[in-house]
Amino acid sequence: MKFSPLVQELIDSLKCLPGVGSKTAQRMAFQLLERNRQGGEKLAGALAKAMTEVGHCQQCRNFTESELCEICASPKRKIATQLCIVESPADVIAIEQTAEFQGRYFVLMGHLSPLDGIGPNDLGLDILENELLKGQITELILATNPTVEGEATAHYIAEMAKHYQVTISRIAHGVPVGGELEYVDGNTLSHALSGRKNYSV
Amino acid sequence: MKFSPLVQELIDSLKCLPGVGSKTAQRMAFQLLERNRQGGEKLAGALAKAMTEVGHCQQCRNFTESELCEICASPKRKIATQLCIVESPADVIAIEQTAEFQGRYFVLMGHLSPLDGIGPNDLGLDILENELLKGQITELILATNPTVEGEATAHYIAEMAKHYQVTISRIAHGVPVGGELEYVDGNTLSHALSGRKNYSV
Ligand SMILES: [Zn+2]
Ligand SMILES: [Zn+2]
Repeated sequence: MKFSPLVQELIDSLKCLPGVGSKTAQRMAFQLLERNRQGGEKLAGALAKAMTEVGHCQQCRNFTESELCEICASPKRKIATQLCIVESPADVIAIEQTAEFQGRYFVLMGHLSPLDGIGPNDLGLDILENELLKGQITELILATNPTVEGEATAHYIAEMAKHYQVTISRIAHGVPVGGELEYVDGNTLSHALSGRKNYSV
Repeated sequence: MKFSPLVQELIDSLKCLPGVGSKTAQRMAFQLLERNRQGGEKLAGALAKAMTEVGHCQQCRNFTESELCEICASPKRKIATQLCIVESPADVIAIEQTAEFQGRYFVLMGHLSPLDGIGPNDLGLDILENELLKGQITELILATNPTVEGEATAHYIAEMAKHYQVTISRIAHGVPVGGELEYVDGNTLSHALSGRKNYSV
């Protein structure tokens, strides 16, 4: 005994979402069918459109339905000489929200992960190297996550980039602003110590 | 700064799924766009079809894309005199898997919940009463969940059903088979004690 064919198909399809198992998929399907058909139809439309129309920006690899993303298409950014390398589109938004950076981005859409079969070309590093070849970029800011994989990816890109006329920098590790020292993990704390700066009063 | 319009729309739409907030919706959208377009398209199709074609069985209220669900349409079940009341389609499947029950079901699709504005008619109790009026049903098995809401719903239905010629029963509370007494909560344990049966050897 199973659910009716269309309900079962919906439950099975929902399991393609990350972190969604059988029980959660069931709960989602029942909730939409019983209480939110309109939301379900809206989601169906948004999914269908996004899956077929969203591609990658030809320059930075971020998701976009145009040839160039909004940032790459902006005249002010086109002449930028700084390129900030991030792992995900969400990182671009986080950095944009600081309003500290006026350069361009390059979105890896992940990090090197040999076990998952994700190598340099899956991260578009060939496209990145072409960008460096053009000679417009003078600084490469490595803003991958401060995780083992993020550090390994940053290291790999730095190795590649040192053949070009470009300054390579890494975002600073340290104590989060507003954090309390006693709750900061030891690794972060030793980074914060070794990365200490002169403090003039 | 936001994601591109179609990506943002996808993220917003995913938030209609229960338990999915902004961060989870983002992760889901990126995962589908980057690693599983095929799964995303399949989900879009399954959703669109289910939202428009799945309705309720005219007899038991379970989800079905036909007029009657598979169980209600089965000739053997049509002549059944037992009616088992459950809260959700998943409960029907759980009981069917025991192969202990050959009667019909009535699916409430929830439980009484005044705070959420869910009253008797939202649970189809008018349809249930019509069923009782027909006089075919001789036993009503209340199999709502052993929760406060489930008990209240069972109580409400029992009050309604006592005006009809029908035996009313409630599934037994007690110690789960294979469980250890010391880990069973006190409420369940007192139900297990007061519901004790003669044990003949
Ligand atoms: Zn771009
Ligand atoms: Zn039915």
